[in-house]
Amino acid sequence: MERIGFLGPHATFTEQALLSMPESASAELVPLPGNPAVLAAVRAGEVDAGCVPIENSVEGAVPPVLDGLVADPPLVIVREAVVAVRFVLVGRAGTAQADIRTVASHGHGIAQTRGWISAHLPQAEMVVSTSTSEAAAQVARGEMDAAACSPLAAEQHGLEVLADDIADNAGAVTRFVLVTPPGPPPAPTGRDRTTLALTTENRPGSLLGLLTELAVRGIDLTRIESRPIKDRPSDYWFHLDCSGHVADPAMGEALAALHRRSDRVRFLGSFPRTAGAAEPVSGVGAPAVPLHGADAAAYRAAEDWLAGLRNGART
Amino acid sequence: MERIGFLGPHATFTEQALLSMPESASAELVPLPGNPAVLAAVRAGEVDAGCVPIENSVEGAVPPVLDGLVADPPLVIVREAVVAVRFVLVGRAGTAQADIRTVASHGHGIAQTRGWISAHLPQAEMVVSTSTSEAAAQVARGEMDAAACSPLAAEQHGLEVLADDIADNAGAVTRFVLVTPPGPPPAPTGRDRTTLALTTENRPGSLLGLLTELAVRGIDLTRIESRPIKDRPSDYWFHLDCSGHVADPAMGEALAALHRRSDRVRFLGSFPRTAGAAEPVSGVGAPAVPLHGADAAAYRAAEDWLAGLRNGART
Amino acid sequence: MERIGFLGPHATFTEQALLSMPESASAELVPLPGNPAVLAAVRAGEVDAGCVPIENSVEGAVPPVLDGLVADPPLVIVREAVVAVRFVLVGRAGTAQADIRTVASHGHGIAQTRGWISAHLPQAEMVVSTSTSEAAAQVARGEMDAAACSPLAAEQHGLEVLADDIADNAGAVTRFVLVTPPGPPPAPTGRDRTTLALTTENRPGSLLGLLTELAVRGIDLTRIESRPIKDRPSDYWFHLDCSGHVADPAMGEALAALHRRSDRVRFLGSFPRTAGAAEPVSGVGAPAVPLHGADAAAYRAAEDWLAGLRNGART
Amino acid sequence: MERIGFLGPHATFTEQALLSMPESASAELVPLPGNPAVLAAVRAGEVDAGCVPIENSVEGAVPPVLDGLVADPPLVIVREAVVAVRFVLVGRAGTAQADIRTVASHGHGIAQTRGWISAHLPQAEMVVSTSTSEAAAQVARGEMDAAACSPLAAEQHGLEVLADDIADNAGAVTRFVLVTPPGPPPAPTGRDRTTLALTTENRPGSLLGLLTELAVRGIDLTRIESRPIKDRPSDYWFHLDCSGHVADPAMGEALAALHRRSDRVRFLGSFPRTAGAAEPVSGVGAPAVPLHGADAAAYRAAEDWLAGLRNGART
Repeated sequence: MERIGFLGPHATFTEQALLSMPESASAELVPLPGNPAVLAAVRAGEVDAGCVPIENSVEGAVPPVLDGLVADPPLVIVREAVVAVRFVLVGRAGTAQADIRTVASHGHGIAQTRGWISAHLPQAEMVVSTSTSEAAAQVARGEMDAAACSPLAAEQHGLEVLADDIADNAGAVTRFVLVTPPGPPPAPTGRDRTTLALTTENRPGSLLGLLTELAVRGIDLTRIESRPIKDRPSDYWFHLDCSGHVADPAMGEALAALHRRSDRVRFLGSFPRTAGAAEPVSGVGAPAVPLHGADAAAYRAAEDWLAGLRNGART
Repeated sequence: MERIGFLGPHATFTEQALLSMPESASAELVPLPGNPAVLAAVRAGEVDAGCVPIENSVEGAVPPVLDGLVADPPLVIVREAVVAVRFVLVGRAGTAQADIRTVASHGHGIAQTRGWISAHLPQAEMVVSTSTSEAAAQVARGEMDAAACSPLAAEQHGLEVLADDIADNAGAVTRFVLVTPPGPPPAPTGRDRTTLALTTENRPGSLLGLLTELAVRGIDLTRIESRPIKDRPSDYWFHLDCSGHVADPAMGEALAALHRRSDRVRFLGSFPRTAGAAEPVSGVGAPAVPLHGADAAAYRAAEDWLAGLRNGART
Repeated sequence: MERIGFLGPHATFTEQALLSMPESASAELVPLPGNPAVLAAVRAGEVDAGCVPIENSVEGAVPPVLDGLVADPPLVIVREAVVAVRFVLVGRAGTAQADIRTVASHGHGIAQTRGWISAHLPQAEMVVSTSTSEAAAQVARGEMDAAACSPLAAEQHGLEVLADDIADNAGAVTRFVLVTPPGPPPAPTGRDRTTLALTTENRPGSLLGLLTELAVRGIDLTRIESRPIKDRPSDYWFHLDCSGHVADPAMGEALAALHRRSDRVRFLGSFPRTAGAAEPVSGVGAPAVPLHGADAAAYRAAEDWLAGLRNGART
Repeated sequence: MERIGFLGPHATFTEQALLSMPESASAELVPLPGNPAVLAAVRAGEVDAGCVPIENSVEGAVPPVLDGLVADPPLVIVREAVVAVRFVLVGRAGTAQADIRTVASHGHGIAQTRGWISAHLPQAEMVVSTSTSEAAAQVARGEMDAAACSPLAAEQHGLEVLADDIADNAGAVTRFVLVTPPGPPPAPTGRDRTTLALTTENRPGSLLGLLTELAVRGIDLTRIESRPIKDRPSDYWFHLDCSGHVADPAMGEALAALHRRSDRVRFLGSFPRTAGAAEPVSGVGAPAVPLHGADAAAYRAAEDWLAGLRNGART
């Protein structure tokens, strides 16, 4: 990849995530003004890939990214990375907390620090910036009094840390994904994740039926989200993260089954699960019993047996 | 087929069934002394096929045939036929009912006429013959006083009908099947039956899991029987009749899944369902909802889509 | 119980089973001429209970008993016992095998010794008696040359054992049950069996749905049989043995669910599982996962919680 | 109810929703500074009930409200209302769009109008207010140049509508709920909704198992959301809306089953479904087949039958 887009300017949490991905090593990193802009640039071919946040351990899913992933034309995820989210309050050198009238941050940054700011800076207005790093830049330019951003952004913009660890919930992490146009998926590693979105027909049993298609083939879910479909009231896209890779026979058969049975299904990529990222949450929906016969060898043996039945081999 | 074995002598219900099958038209029909002998002759290559009863609407399954079908080497069913079972009491000309001390019939014939014989011929002993037609032959030879057999056997052996319709349950039918060594199955007709036998591992949920493999693919059951496994106490062979043909993608995928997940699975043939035979008993276990996407076109479309995902086509 | 009926005369396998049941200790044991006669005598009040065979490890279910149990008025099982079935060939003192022209036995006895008799006594006719003990009595009276019966019957009727262990399958056992009119079931022991029969509506998913009602409540199946329904072609009674007792909350709720959802359901009793009898065959259909919350305490806690919700308790 | 809290000041969308609920007719409506403040005031007993938004047709769930509902002590929903969300851009009389440097709104208001504001007011900063009505008040006080709020707030604060229908997605609706401390639920109406939250044990099949408990009892889902659990990484609260009422036997039994099987289950109320609110989205997970026997009469009949079995009634 020659060019990879991300939510700029430099020093955002997204850039931190992107720098941890091997794809960034030899690529030009292109700051863009928003997550929708990142996805649009990938779709338009202006960049080869884009890095976007997909879920946060405190805030949950990132709705515009989920909605953007299922738009057209298709995109797929090829990599994930998890970044610990630590917020600092920054200002120009010498700023006293009592003098702060405006605090800028990205909408998610505001959501995660609102309690601290209300308690410590009751007189301040919270202003929405396009990114936490841009908020820091606004402070550096004198447009805002303070910002809630990453330590890296503070350093990059030459600002003073007025207060550390101001997030309302300590220990938050955000999972970021690298998306590209469709192409051959990364090779299976044995510890892979497959991301999907699908809609159900408005018919009894549809979702249960679709989850059963995964469960009978021993596929574990790690996440399920529902998002309203803007043009179909009372209807939802279900976003699923599953264990496994599209190249696995079990996953392939399950995807084919979902394709037959669901109204719309969108394959959003198979890629290595990162060590830091959520392990499979088996409880979400998974094989009724630890399935035997779910591995590739069992699939091959069964295919051979079936071929024999069909051509009448005297086995 | 040049030679087809059946339970002889001529004029048994089995021969009646066989004569209704198109395969009998140009074949030599070979009477044999029992259903196990018929299966053995097919396995030994002494005949090309054999006709055996598989279930009766009153007595249920025919245990030795079910057990024989799952023995080795494999056999498959290629045809079925349904015959109405009407029993007559026959004797030599001039026989008075009061003089009958012995009534011969096949074990199933005795089971189906025992009430009538006990009531009308309380003094008579019931003697087990190898077939209903052999019972008639025994009467003709003077070895027995009377027989419970088919009208055809009465006629063939020159006997007098002493009482008509002596079955305890009127309207009984028996389903017969034609079995051969494994070979390419009969072409699908769109109204086919597939017969299977499988064992479960002694693990929670096994049978439910196996039935779910059929249900999720829209495959209907028409019969389920359990038979003890002689060498595995407390374990069972489950005999299933399903709607569909091994050549159907849905059935093929289901069979492959059963092969992966069950302990032992035996494919016992795909063949046209006869008009007279039992229609699918949907209640036995079947799709949770009338599935869309269960037809061959949906399977092909899903396969194409999956292939595209795997090679990275930009669809 | 004052009077208990069984398939007579004395010395049948059924009497052996009955003698192993504590209920027989103080009761008059009444020999009757057939299993249907035993069930009829219980229904008519001529005896207080009846002992009948329900399944054999070689032959499978005993069809007339299964069919008889679901007839009207209702009967319930209160006890089970398992008896090893060992057949001997008996004759009057001095009988040579070469001289045997007739061998009597019960139909099941014939079915289980047919191979041996065909091989060793090819010249003999097999005659159906109402019981193995009656067959021995016929030999004692000189009406038959030989009988296939139990060692006990041989002894009782003063006959000589001409050949031992003549069953085609060694090690067979038969399970017998003691049935009574409905009444309070035997107290739970913690190792109980509940026997049911039910019919499904001829609708997709019915059987799978009914088995799911058991599985979700952690109830294990030990046996499933299908029997044609004489007056409803293509329809079946399903006979189920389950782990647990009607007094258990889980079983109670499951039975109530089956009552709501199935076409017809017949409770055939809760009673202690005997040591010799089949252990639960988990594979037949059972909880998807080892359920927590399936014990009585969890049911009570859940009921209390629900009552609180309904009356608005501020818990 | 004497006092009902809502997100103030007056003229918020929340107040619009509250005014449509009959409970507001005779109550004092108490404006509070945020949705968490509303829930806290109900818990503290400072108000008798509180009105909060729960989901928006464009933005999806309202995370802090979902998280707040499952906090302690318990709260329950007793009413819902749906309000069409129409945003207008307002300013003081005579304001020209070109002069607008600051646009205030609630975070959700900003999220729903960001596209329009970026396109039409590229020079403006978006400032987060505690409510859309407070944003209008800030404009009226001269603290902000413009606000994105409801027509009602524009009118109430004497502001001029500078642009109408500025939401990025037309036709959005928000569903609001009225919450109280636990108490007897509103009487069933036959068209009720029950709201739940539950966590699964991190075990294969847990979620599928829990959804099956609803499905087997004919209970339809209308919404499923997952929310991270702050103190249990990789674990989720699942928020479910179901058809039916806690007083219904089917729902009661299902709730009791969830209580037994899930790790934590929170009953969040049974209340009438409003005409405007989402109809059951059957596809989300629902009975495999249109269940018979799911109505109260069938439950009563089954209970009676079970009681008879347990006490041995000769029915």
